[in-house]
Amino acid sequence: MSEIVVVGGGIIGLSIAWRLTEHGKDVTVLDGGDEGAWQVAAGMLAPGGESVFEAPALVRLMERSADLWPGFAAGLGVDVGYDDTGTLSLAMTADDVAEAARLWTKQQLPLLRPSELRELEPALSPRVRIGVHSPRERQVDPRRVVAALRERLGDRIVPKRVDALSDVDASTIVVAAGCGTAKLTGLPVRPVKGQVLRLRGEPGLLRHVLDATVDGRSVYVVPRHDGEIVVGATQEERTDRQVTAGGVYELLRAAIELVPGLAELELTETTVGHRPGTPDNAPLIGQLEPGVLVAAGHHRNGILLAPVTAELIAGLVLGEQGDPDFDPRRF
Amino acid sequence: MSEIVVVGGGIIGLSIAWRLTEHGKDVTVLDGGDEGAWQVAAGMLAPGGESVFEAPALVRLMERSADLWPGFAAGLGVDVGYDDTGTLSLAMTADDVAEAARLWTKQQLPLLRPSELRELEPALSPRVRIGVHSPRERQVDPRRVVAALRERLGDRIVPKRVDALSDVDASTIVVAAGCGTAKLTGLPVRPVKGQVLRLRGEPGLLRHVLDATVDGRSVYVVPRHDGEIVVGATQEERTDRQVTAGGVYELLRAAIELVPGLAELELTETTVGHRPGTPDNAPLIGQLEPGVLVAAGHHRNGILLAPVTAELIAGLVLGEQGDPDFDPRRF
Repeated sequence: MSEIVVVGGGIIGLSIAWRLTEHGKDVTVLDGGDEGAWQVAAGMLAPGGESVFEAPALVRLMERSADLWPGFAAGLGVDVGYDDTGTLSLAMTADDVAEAARLWTKQQLPLLRPSELRELEPALSPRVRIGVHSPRERQVDPRRVVAALRERLGDRIVPKRVDALSDVDASTIVVAAGCGTAKLTGLPVRPVKGQVLRLRGEPGLLRHVLDATVDGRSVYVVPRHDGEIVVGATQEERTDRQVTAGGVYELLRAAIELVPGLAELELTETTVGHRPGTPDNAPLIGQLEPGVLVAAGHHRNGILLAPVTAELIAGLVLGEQGDPDFDPRRF
Repeated sequence: MSEIVVVGGGIIGLSIAWRLTEHGKDVTVLDGGDEGAWQVAAGMLAPGGESVFEAPALVRLMERSADLWPGFAAGLGVDVGYDDTGTLSLAMTADDVAEAARLWTKQQLPLLRPSELRELEPALSPRVRIGVHSPRERQVDPRRVVAALRERLGDRIVPKRVDALSDVDASTIVVAAGCGTAKLTGLPVRPVKGQVLRLRGEPGLLRHVLDATVDGRSVYVVPRHDGEIVVGATQEERTDRQVTAGGVYELLRAAIELVPGLAELELTETTVGHRPGTPDNAPLIGQLEPGVLVAAGHHRNGILLAPVTAELIAGLVLGEQGDPDFDPRRF
């Protein structure tokens, strides 16, 4: 067995393992083969999102990770879909505008009129009333990131399910098992179900990530260079893996209201993932007990936070202090 | 090679072959393995549907086949989902009512008030304004029917693609190749694309087949005894096999408006089929040339018309006259 064993082969576990190998550490990743949240995630790198703006420590962590992303992506050595065109945040009805304006005021971004928005994205519905362009919000393709990390790590990744940490023989264990972390550690990580769609058309319909409130419903539309468009996501406090008629309907409704041309595109995937949530929806990054580190509970921000999480865990392994705001024993 | 070769292993070809074996004939079915329209069809047996009521010969054929169905289903010897609870035809808006009333008046069925409809189907939306109960409209599960026919015919079905009738060695050839009939015979059979969804929940949400006009869009909702619910169908003059965002959205919208509880159900399949259409949308059943019979172009009514088509083709093989209204050379 290796000096360090990472339990969990999702984007967090793989990022940590990659960073540790760069520090010359002997690392093995045990991958139980469960579907990770990264498999359905859209890959929006949005450090200033609405869900967090009352949590300054988390915002700082997200901004720090956003700054790490260009170097992290470049270091992988292949195209992982990193794109800095930026995000258009949009609102449809007067109620949607009122809701969105709270965040936009805080972000101090200039409001764009419908004509300005449609100059940036001609496919937008004429119903879109107002929006802002967030140049700091980026995207990456999580499936490409994981494929690149797997390529980098090669046979350091071992397909093996871990049912108890006592079965793992290593001087340091890093638990990065997403929703599975609860069972392994007793920490309060709960699954938050999300339904996500993938459409496919000719590239070029959209250029920006769209993050919108449409008739009271949040929806994002993330265009990839190859013509794939990710539409997400429901947020449900449920553990099942069922794609539901209502979930798919609500996502399609909001997306097609926002960009009517999406109706013509092929619907290639209807999927379910589970975000690993915590009581305060901030991640657990730090030492649980001597020899056991935890990196889990990233909720909606696992892709964004992968580089900073890898850096923090590597620091702990090298003897640095952790960040008390994300101490896994804080609850 | 057999005395009679049926080209096409869909519900029409299999029904013909079964009927011919019952007459003691030596029959082989060549099945090219293409997806037949039966694989997505809901299996509504609706002899008096809106699309045909100006075509009296076709209505007579459909009614005759509807009368054959109970015996046909019973003869298969297994449960093929034949259900005679009947269909509720429903209308939502005043415009929908005006459209539907043309057919209902012709059918001389008593109009049911919302309270009466909800007594029959408590899950119906309160938006449903009016409807009729059509006890003569039945349903069957086409996948079960084909499975039963395949079981009956056993090794008389040979997996083999036919590219030209000249390659087939038989004293009588029956072309029952659905949309593929055009290429084999030159007859004007065109694919009419339909997108169909399947949901799954606990049995008991619905008892009747629902056939509705919802905000101007036709939709049917077909509940099976095992909890499967079929929702269909788009009707598009297209040949592609793409499930589209807009197609799925429109079907879900109409179905959920009609029965709000469907939103909670799992969406288990999004599929595309192609109905084999003809210039007058009536089937081609008869002799094309000596030794070559055709049974194709059943458009939306292939499941309903399978028993009567099998009977007509068997009659022709036995030397009876065909029905000139469905002569394949009529165009």
